[in-house]
Amino acid sequence: MARSANSRRANEQKKAPRKKLLTKRSHKAGRPPGTLIHVGETPASAVSIRCIEYDRDHLADRQVETPAECRLSADSGRIGWINLDGVHDLPLLEQIGSLFNLHPLVLEDIVNTDHRPKFEDFDDYLFLTLKMLHYDGAKAEISTEQVSLVLTTHQVLSFQERQGDVFEGVRQRLRNNKGRIRKMGADYLAYALLDAVVDSYFAILEQIGEQIEQLEAELLQRPSPEILNRIHHFKREMILLRKAIWPLRELIGVLQRCESPLVSENTAVFLRDVYDHTIQIIDTVETFRDVLSGLLDLYLSTISNRMNEVMKVLTIIATIFIPLTFVAGIYGMNFDHMPELHWRWSYPLLWLVMLVMAGGMYLFFRKKRWL
Amino acid sequence: MARSANSRRANEQKKAPRKKLLTKRSHKAGRPPGTLIHVGETPASAVSIRCIEYDRDHLADRQVETPAECRLSADSGRIGWINLDGVHDLPLLEQIGSLFNLHPLVLEDIVNTDHRPKFEDFDDYLFLTLKMLHYDGAKAEISTEQVSLVLTTHQVLSFQERQGDVFEGVRQRLRNNKGRIRKMGADYLAYALLDAVVDSYFAILEQIGEQIEQLEAELLQRPSPEILNRIHHFKREMILLRKAIWPLRELIGVLQRCESPLVSENTAVFLRDVYDHTIQIIDTVETFRDVLSGLLDLYLSTISNRMNEVMKVLTIIATIFIPLTFVAGIYGMNFDHMPELHWRWSYPLLWLVMLVMAGGMYLFFRKKRWL
Amino acid sequence: MARSANSRRANEQKKAPRKKLLTKRSHKAGRPPGTLIHVGETPASAVSIRCIEYDRDHLADRQVETPAECRLSADSGRIGWINLDGVHDLPLLEQIGSLFNLHPLVLEDIVNTDHRPKFEDFDDYLFLTLKMLHYDGAKAEISTEQVSLVLTTHQVLSFQERQGDVFEGVRQRLRNNKGRIRKMGADYLAYALLDAVVDSYFAILEQIGEQIEQLEAELLQRPSPEILNRIHHFKREMILLRKAIWPLRELIGVLQRCESPLVSENTAVFLRDVYDHTIQIIDTVETFRDVLSGLLDLYLSTISNRMNEVMKVLTIIATIFIPLTFVAGIYGMNFDHMPELHWRWSYPLLWLVMLVMAGGMYLFFRKKRWL
Amino acid sequence: MARSANSRRANEQKKAPRKKLLTKRSHKAGRPPGTLIHVGETPASAVSIRCIEYDRDHLADRQVETPAECRLSADSGRIGWINLDGVHDLPLLEQIGSLFNLHPLVLEDIVNTDHRPKFEDFDDYLFLTLKMLHYDGAKAEISTEQVSLVLTTHQVLSFQERQGDVFEGVRQRLRNNKGRIRKMGADYLAYALLDAVVDSYFAILEQIGEQIEQLEAELLQRPSPEILNRIHHFKREMILLRKAIWPLRELIGVLQRCESPLVSENTAVFLRDVYDHTIQIIDTVETFRDVLSGLLDLYLSTISNRMNEVMKVLTIIATIFIPLTFVAGIYGMNFDHMPELHWRWSYPLLWLVMLVMAGGMYLFFRKKRWL
Amino acid sequence: MARSANSRRANEQKKAPRKKLLTKRSHKAGRPPGTLIHVGETPASAVSIRCIEYDRDHLADRQVETPAECRLSADSGRIGWINLDGVHDLPLLEQIGSLFNLHPLVLEDIVNTDHRPKFEDFDDYLFLTLKMLHYDGAKAEISTEQVSLVLTTHQVLSFQERQGDVFEGVRQRLRNNKGRIRKMGADYLAYALLDAVVDSYFAILEQIGEQIEQLEAELLQRPSPEILNRIHHFKREMILLRKAIWPLRELIGVLQRCESPLVSENTAVFLRDVYDHTIQIIDTVETFRDVLSGLLDLYLSTISNRMNEVMKVLTIIATIFIPLTFVAGIYGMNFDHMPELHWRWSYPLLWLVMLVMAGGMYLFFRKKRWL
Repeated sequence: MARSANSRRANEQKKAPRKKLLTKRSHKAGRPPGTLIHVGETPASAVSIRCIEYDRDHLADRQVETPAECRLSADSGRIGWINLDGVHDLPLLEQIGSLFNLHPLVLEDIVNTDHRPKFEDFDDYLFLTLKMLHYDGAKAEISTEQVSLVLTTHQVLSFQERQGDVFEGVRQRLRNNKGRIRKMGADYLAYALLDAVVDSYFAILEQIGEQIEQLEAELLQRPSPEILNRIHHFKREMILLRKAIWPLRELIGVLQRCESPLVSENTAVFLRDVYDHTIQIIDTVETFRDVLSGLLDLYLSTISNRMNEVMKVLTIIATIFIPLTFVAGIYGMNFDHMPELHWRWSYPLLWLVMLVMAGGMYLFFRKKRWL
Repeated sequence: MARSANSRRANEQKKAPRKKLLTKRSHKAGRPPGTLIHVGETPASAVSIRCIEYDRDHLADRQVETPAECRLSADSGRIGWINLDGVHDLPLLEQIGSLFNLHPLVLEDIVNTDHRPKFEDFDDYLFLTLKMLHYDGAKAEISTEQVSLVLTTHQVLSFQERQGDVFEGVRQRLRNNKGRIRKMGADYLAYALLDAVVDSYFAILEQIGEQIEQLEAELLQRPSPEILNRIHHFKREMILLRKAIWPLRELIGVLQRCESPLVSENTAVFLRDVYDHTIQIIDTVETFRDVLSGLLDLYLSTISNRMNEVMKVLTIIATIFIPLTFVAGIYGMNFDHMPELHWRWSYPLLWLVMLVMAGGMYLFFRKKRWL
Repeated sequence: MARSANSRRANEQKKAPRKKLLTKRSHKAGRPPGTLIHVGETPASAVSIRCIEYDRDHLADRQVETPAECRLSADSGRIGWINLDGVHDLPLLEQIGSLFNLHPLVLEDIVNTDHRPKFEDFDDYLFLTLKMLHYDGAKAEISTEQVSLVLTTHQVLSFQERQGDVFEGVRQRLRNNKGRIRKMGADYLAYALLDAVVDSYFAILEQIGEQIEQLEAELLQRPSPEILNRIHHFKREMILLRKAIWPLRELIGVLQRCESPLVSENTAVFLRDVYDHTIQIIDTVETFRDVLSGLLDLYLSTISNRMNEVMKVLTIIATIFIPLTFVAGIYGMNFDHMPELHWRWSYPLLWLVMLVMAGGMYLFFRKKRWL
Repeated sequence: MARSANSRRANEQKKAPRKKLLTKRSHKAGRPPGTLIHVGETPASAVSIRCIEYDRDHLADRQVETPAECRLSADSGRIGWINLDGVHDLPLLEQIGSLFNLHPLVLEDIVNTDHRPKFEDFDDYLFLTLKMLHYDGAKAEISTEQVSLVLTTHQVLSFQERQGDVFEGVRQRLRNNKGRIRKMGADYLAYALLDAVVDSYFAILEQIGEQIEQLEAELLQRPSPEILNRIHHFKREMILLRKAIWPLRELIGVLQRCESPLVSENTAVFLRDVYDHTIQIIDTVETFRDVLSGLLDLYLSTISNRMNEVMKVLTIIATIFIPLTFVAGIYGMNFDHMPELHWRWSYPLLWLVMLVMAGGMYLFFRKKRWL
Repeated sequence: MARSANSRRANEQKKAPRKKLLTKRSHKAGRPPGTLIHVGETPASAVSIRCIEYDRDHLADRQVETPAECRLSADSGRIGWINLDGVHDLPLLEQIGSLFNLHPLVLEDIVNTDHRPKFEDFDDYLFLTLKMLHYDGAKAEISTEQVSLVLTTHQVLSFQERQGDVFEGVRQRLRNNKGRIRKMGADYLAYALLDAVVDSYFAILEQIGEQIEQLEAELLQRPSPEILNRIHHFKREMILLRKAIWPLRELIGVLQRCESPLVSENTAVFLRDVYDHTIQIIDTVETFRDVLSGLLDLYLSTISNRMNEVMKVLTIIATIFIPLTFVAGIYGMNFDHMPELHWRWSYPLLWLVMLVMAGGMYLFFRKKRWL
């Protein structure tokens, strides 16, 4: 039952259009740097802007129309989080860029959703871009969504490609005033977002880990060509996952060591913690790769063993009968002078001879451990 | 006999539930950092606290109910070791946290039993977490237990997941006042615990080493598909072992170089020694991996050689008899005009011809070194 | 249809002369360093010199005969770009060398079109040489063209092997006064050229990425030996691509960190951006290599699986019929005393026996999951 | 002849007990560090102490009973070399330890003969431990013996596991006052011993190199399964050799850079030389590994090629005869109405047809290059 | 034609004695360091000394008997180049050593022709030793010759193993006063020699590159076991080449960065150029290794594909005829009661049945894409 579900899934995988190895961005070539050109799929819905402002005592959470409504003065004593779902509205982004005084290259990196995770320190603000991962368990496929964060002294801007994210926990903690989040600065908020993204990786790795273990169990029980395709599929996902996660380590490492006044000592301790998580995630991805390579080897050896066993048994059957057929052929000849043909007991005797031949060969093969 | 025991063991391995590649921690995602959530299996028994206090002349060893009973003032001149068997009692841990002034992230790392080995210097105290390994020789499976150590100026806190550990030797040395352990500070005690953990790795590697050697001996004598599964099993254990041990080297390296006043010069020499042991353990794990890869290659080549030999012999038998059968078929034909059929000596002559044919082919194959 | 086009393409690949692994330069050995000897193909056309001069308000774009016409004095306040299509006119290059005071080794590197990408700081000017790539989608072949850039305080010299380049976008931005290019110095122009080259790599990787994905789709649907050749072809292209791109990273890294007064702070930010792109390109090439290795493994396993299946079925057919043929052979014998021959129902009975034998073997193979 | 010797040797290898991958030391776990516990085989003979004292003009060489007899005062102007054959006499070692004021961990490292090569600077003396290798050419097996050196201002202590070493050359040079050895300090003596050990590695690598070359020659001439075992054996030896030699490089590198006053400038030049040799040895071991991997690939391909050739020829023979047998079978049928049976020339005609069939198939296979 | 030449060449390779993986030097073990012992083949001819002295205006080139004749005083203003063909005349070398005040280890390195390329700065002079390569295109074999250079303030000593070198170009430039060589110091001369050696590597890599490309072409056209041996041969050469070239990079890197007053600023620029070449050569060797690995994979896959195709066709032929033979066997039985035997049209009908069977199986195999 489980197996047929699996093979159905594998069939779907075969037919489903593969995600691109590289997002199209060739139409960008030759344009001046800083030109905003959206790279990636354009979602149907309009960009929605959500603006959360808080201090220890109050919290306001609202959808706004224009980013200008969210601009907080630095001396208000409040922390602001502006979240955009969608980066395909280029005029809007330019507006934000001039409002928050962002470098054109930052805007370019935000709209180019195929960017490698990176961190940059622009003195007035910190910029970082990374990947949010979604895992479709049924198709066993990882899809990525780029999240960019801009951290100023008292505000955090987050840019996502689509609706739906992993920040719900952070919003709840803000709303419920749980933990220290409302008592600390914008840097802690940025950390909390980063942490939420990294934590979500663990959930995905867990699911993949379980599927790999299930794959291993099936493989040990009953290797089939369909398992080969699934191993291949997971190996490919791991290659893409690795490409998304490796730069993250470097990014957080640099962020943690950067001596920007925007990141307080207190938050730095927490960043070290995220850094540890990142390393653990990388370790796990590498472990999965090793395990998958091991499974592939095991699959190939097992299949080849079984095949060999089958062929051996079949060949032995043929080998036992071919000489017997020859003997039968001998006494089917029509020579005039074949004395054996006329003896009384030659027919039963021949049966005996053939049984002895077959038995002897059987024992010989047995002794040689060929059977 | 040994072999059937082995194959039984291999069967058990197939059926036994595989240990997880990654412990479940997804329910943690979205919670504020520093929230204590226990990650890992929860043992049935309650957490037991054991408290050992000593100086050069006295030693007190008792089970206590609350950690507060173990708090030693820094100027008592005594060294204290507080050991907890179990990290699933979160209120108790929070109590300890406030008693010893531990950072919330430290407590989080202690209860998250899937943590990567790491070391952190919090000025007032040092924190390190590592893996204690248990090896089940029958199942050839390694299980891990997380041990966390907190070192203050005059106390060591150790947190274990379960009852049962590798610290019995240290306790005996304390009790019998053997070696220098009672004469030195808390840092030496922490070192002694670390050393006990690392030393226990050697014992495990030894057992694995012996099993690998036995595997090699069996493989050279009689390769079987079951051996393939065992090689695969050991390779997988090595991947997991490696993941547990590699970070240890870094950990101890940083600990040894850290210039914390909590670690005295005298103890630093001993840490260098543990560091050497760690490197040797890593070397050994890598060597085992190389040896196992070699065994896998050897297995595949040997199996393929044997298979080829069998197929060749069988094919040669068939090849000798097929032409003979053809000849017999010829003289089984019912043509009216086949002069040979009526000759006096054609039947014995045919036998002769066939013997010569078979012999000739045999010699030909022999000469070609196909047999 | 698509497939036959593919196989035709593959055939062309087989016949088309392979590009050299290493350009001939052995005739250079033993000559004094600094001797100008052109290494590479000599194009038929004469070297054309194009000279663009601009400031914020004016732009002049003209073909000139001699490089001397393009020499700008440093205090003119204008920026000059001199482009040469062709590096095989050695006297012309020597003329330029003395005009701009270039080191003989620089000229040597320019004419040696097999040079590894590199950057060198000569205080008065910066020199860098890199590869422009062209991708012939039909043949799936990458060809390289060397581009060398010399950056002085107010002029950029670019040397190309042939007509045709990726700089058209830069020229348009200059002509249309788009973006900041006309407002900034020669260093920004050099950056723009560098950026145009790096951007063109993305376009090529995209095309290759698509072809690899198509390859994967074909492979999953219908593996054929022709696909093997194409995988091999792409792997080979990747080896050559890698050789061209890896040094680029180092080059731009050094350029970005070099503290030459020729590169302003403003431009350095943009160089960091190009650096990021280079790393992303390298990541992508490595990912492609991994994917191709995975495809090769998949191809081999799939082919071997199919082959095994075929052989198994065929062998089973033979195995079923060989014993039956033997039985038929038995009753073709001519012994005088074979009682079965004379029984009334022995012929139909034999058919029955043979059907039961064949059916039994079929069920046996089925049960063993050999069919 | 040579081959049978080889196969005999290979058989011995199979039966001979394998050297341990890891020496037993588990009984050490839990003991206080600095406890002397001998790890390794205990030789039967008692520990012999040999003591050589010399200056430019005199040399005394004697066997002594107690190490105290060898203690030289620093201002005697003489250099002393104390050599112990055997490290299993723990009281003796403790005596030496207190005599020369050695750290307990040094003694522990000396008696633990499974230690990784390492160097440590204890201000008053330098300690280094490394492996002396012995090669048993007949069994193609490397055995290791641990040598530890302690260098004080005017004395060198060397500890060996067993009688028999590679220091005979050094002793002769001392005795004959050859080279500069009698004119320089204890550091030069230590260097000479180190150099003797490293030089002996070359001799071993040479022997192994010759055996590998012989293996390659045999493999090209006549691949056999026995060669596979030998390749595997050498690969395994290389893994163990590598484990012994790699740390040596680091050791000598640190020793050479350490600014201990115990090592004079003059000797440092010589240490650089030993360092070079160590790198060359590592290079050679890596080269051997690469060559062996190449041989394994070659073996597998060659064997598979030969096997395929054999199977192809056999299959072709069968393929030619099977249709012929079918034709013969046709005319062996007993239908009443088979006109061909009664024609005058049908029998010779059939022979002709069958010859044409066989010849046609032969030519067809030939044309297809299958034969 | 080409092919038979190739296979002849391959045969020669098989028989030709392989060059040693490691030159014999075991007889050196145990000798005091600095003892001159020639390691390598001893050429028959005597050592010839050639001495070139020059300044801007004059040049003297002569064969001398004793090295003393070549000693130039530092204030003569002339540059001297002393070249020795042969390093087996140990007394001569000792004479040179004392004449130029060389360290005994330098002399030892010069006569030990199996030395790893290295550079050492002895304040008064620089010493470097590297490999000159010769390529025998017919045998596809690289042979190495060690060249050692000693650079003093105004003289260069070069030591070669044999007559014949790659320095003819340098000599011509000196003679013809071409380029800057006569105008610069001894350091430039040393650079010119180094450059000549490195340039000669390119010529060799070119030849090998062409042979590899030819190999690839042959492989795509017609894979044969002989090609396997050639791939193996080239892989082996690459291993040895790599061992000779890798240390060179380090050597020149150190030389270039060393701040010896013996190397002027002007020459340092040229050394940077040689360094670039070295990296390019290493890149090329690594590329060749990758290409060869790709070829090996391709060969194995292609061979296995072809083999499988052959076996499949043969097996299909057998599979079609075996059931037909069975049918013929049926009607060859001698039962008294086989009604079909007596029907009028059963013989032609049987032919029809058999044709239908064969045709059906053919179509079935075709549909399954097995043919």
